[in-house]
Parts: sequence; structure tokens; C-alpha cells
Amino acid sequence: MEKSDIQRQMDFLIEAERLKTVYRQNMVVDKSRQENSAEHSWHLALMAIVLGDRAIDPEVDIMKVIKMVLVHDIVEIDAGDTFLYDAKGYEDKDEREQRAAKRIFGLLPESLADELLSLWKEFEERKTPSALFAAALDNMQPVINHWCSGGAAIKKHHIKASQIIDKKKFIEKASPELWEITLDTIKKSSASGFYDPE
Amino acid sequence: MEKSDIQRQMDFLIEAERLKTVYRQNMVVDKSRQENSAEHSWHLALMAIVLGDRAIDPEVDIMKVIKMVLVHDIVEIDAGDTFLYDAKGYEDKDEREQRAAKRIFGLLPESLADELLSLWKEFEERKTPSALFAAALDNMQPVINHWCSGGAAIKKHHIKASQIIDKKKFIEKASPELWEITLDTIKKSSASGFYDPE
Repeated sequence: MEKSDIQRQMDFLIEAERLKTVYRQNMVVDKSRQENSAEHSWHLALMAIVLGDRAIDPEVDIMKVIKMVLVHDIVEIDAGDTFLYDAKGYEDKDEREQRAAKRIFGLLPESLADELLSLWKEFEERKTPSALFAAALDNMQPVINHWCSGGAAIKKHHIKASQIIDKKKFIEKASPELWEITLDTIKKSSASGFYDPE
Repeated sequence: MEKSDIQRQMDFLIEAERLKTVYRQNMVVDKSRQENSAEHSWHLALMAIVLGDRAIDPEVDIMKVIKMVLVHDIVEIDAGDTFLYDAKGYEDKDEREQRAAKRIFGLLPESLADELLSLWKEFEERKTPSALFAAALDNMQPVINHWCSGGAAIKKHHIKASQIIDKKKFIEKASPELWEITLDTIKKSSASGFYDPE
């Protein structure tokens, strides 16, 4: 028997529970455990609400940015979180995530599946002003987190400040002000020994 | 020296990190730990995106619902999570949360503080169609969570199905379809022994 639309909506939302058990390389602020991708997505959506006025491009649509960051990591339910500095993990990241997107968004009724898949693709491609701003928030958040969790999770990865700057300097194109804060925070964390010397 | 607006925006977002360490009476789906209020808020925002078409009142503004659920629990950073069936905790819940809202939203520049405080108050008062729908999602989510985590966290509280129905039957006013699903799920969980017999 064909499932009803509302049953498919609920199936997707129940599947989404699992994102709360996908852990990232950041720590929560009391250092009791790693941050997961669901609460990370919440934090980005809150950043979009609060920092929306810092986007340089007037075409940025903040409500779209909010929706984008809310769904941007759902593929990790199948594909796992790939650490930004894990070159090997990045080799097949796209393929793993495309497959996951097809399965997970495919749980939904067709029009909703199309809408969320298209939001996810726009985020991944980073070509529109809204996607660029969403990616800027996604790249800024771990830097702030490293600083406020006292470098707890990042030290063991032996990342250099220059590697971080290299990955994240695109933030300046989305918002020079947010890049200034990000760069200052990288420098403070580096001076505190959270990152490896150059 | 007066803090700049952007510094105040960042202060608020750094404070928000702490919501990831406020734990609720639900368990995550692999039963490894309790759910926290940040990931719970993310789940509600995703529900708003996916279930928006189920709101009975055409005046429900889904983007407002999304913003509302993203900020609705931030006061818990100071006030803690009050379990819905904790009558004693509810005695001073309002006062604790009002004080928390004033301090935490007050970290922001004035116009943003006013906007988020007003969203939070609208949610709490449950008088507008958008607030009623947001509250319906907030009340539906734990019921679904009890079911998919096998009653892990709820059994020990010895709640009866009739107590849950009593607290949550207002969902029908926001969405008869979502109430039907919620009620079915309460009945399934009750039949599985997750709730106490009447």
C-alpha cells in the first residue's frame, strides 16, 4: 500500500532524530562531549537570525539561509561528518552525500523532497549569495567554538592557523565584518596554543 | 567603553553555546544520553518546515514559527528545563524564565533584543495562530521521541496516558491531523508499557 503524505513526512522527521547522534570534531562548551550535527545546525540558524544584517550582498535571503542551514547536514545521517582537514575523507564525500541526500530527502512526499534537496544542493554549490552566507556561518562557527571550549577538541588534530585561514578566507566575500571576527579569533586561539605552530 | 553592536551579537551567540548542555527528559534515539534543548529546538524548526502544510489556520506564518521555535528554549540557559509534569517546578517557572529572558536577550543590541524577546513572549502566551502551531510542534515532539526511543527516558516518571492527553489535546486546535498522529502515538506507547496504567 502506498504511504500517505503525512506518514512520509513523519518518517522523515523520525529519521532526522538520528542527526543528534552524528558527532563532530568540536566540543560543547563544558567539554563533557563532542558537539553533534543537530545542535550545530541549530546554532547556525540562530547565527543567521542574529547576524543577518552583516551579509554584504543585499540579495541574501535570510529566511532561505535559515532553512538551508537547518537541512545542510542531514545527509550526515548516512554519510557521517567529514572533518574539514581530512583529505582522504573528502575524496568520496560528494558521492557518499549525494547517495544519502537521495535516500533521506526521498522519504518525503515529492514536492517537499524536491524543495529540501534543492536547498541542500544550493548550499553545497555555494554559488548564490544566500548559499555563500550560509557557508560563511558554517565555517565561522567552529572557530568560535574552538575558542570558547578552550581548544579542547582541536589540539589533538595538529592543525595550523594557516590551514584554517586557507579554508575559511572565503568568509570575507560573504561578510568582511564576520571575517574580521573569525580571523581575530583564529589568531587568539593560535596564540593560546590551540593550533600547531607554523 | 560601550560594546559595539557586533560584539554584543557575538556575546549572545557565545552564550547560546550553553543551551547544548541543558538536558531534557527525552533520550536520543540510540539511548546513549538525554536530549538537549538546542537539538530539540533544531528538530522543531525542521518539523515546522516539513509539517507547515498541516496547520489548520491559514494565518500561520511558518517563517515566524521557525524563528520562534529556534529561540523558545534559550531562557533555559539560566532557568533550566522544567519537566511538563513537574507541578512544583511550574510554580516559579514564569518568574525564572522572565528573568532569564531579560538577561540573555539583553546581551543583544536593542532592536534585536526587542525582536527576539517579543518572539519568545508570543510563543509563551500561545495566543496567535503561529504561536499555537509552534506550541503544538513543541508538544508533539516528545511524544514521537518517547515512541522511537522505546520509552527509555519516560518510564521512570510514571506518567499516565491521560495526563499526557490532558496537557496536549490543545494540539487539535492547531492541527487536527497532527493531533490524530500524536494521540495514536500516545496510545501505541501506552500499550507498549511506556506509560503507567490508568
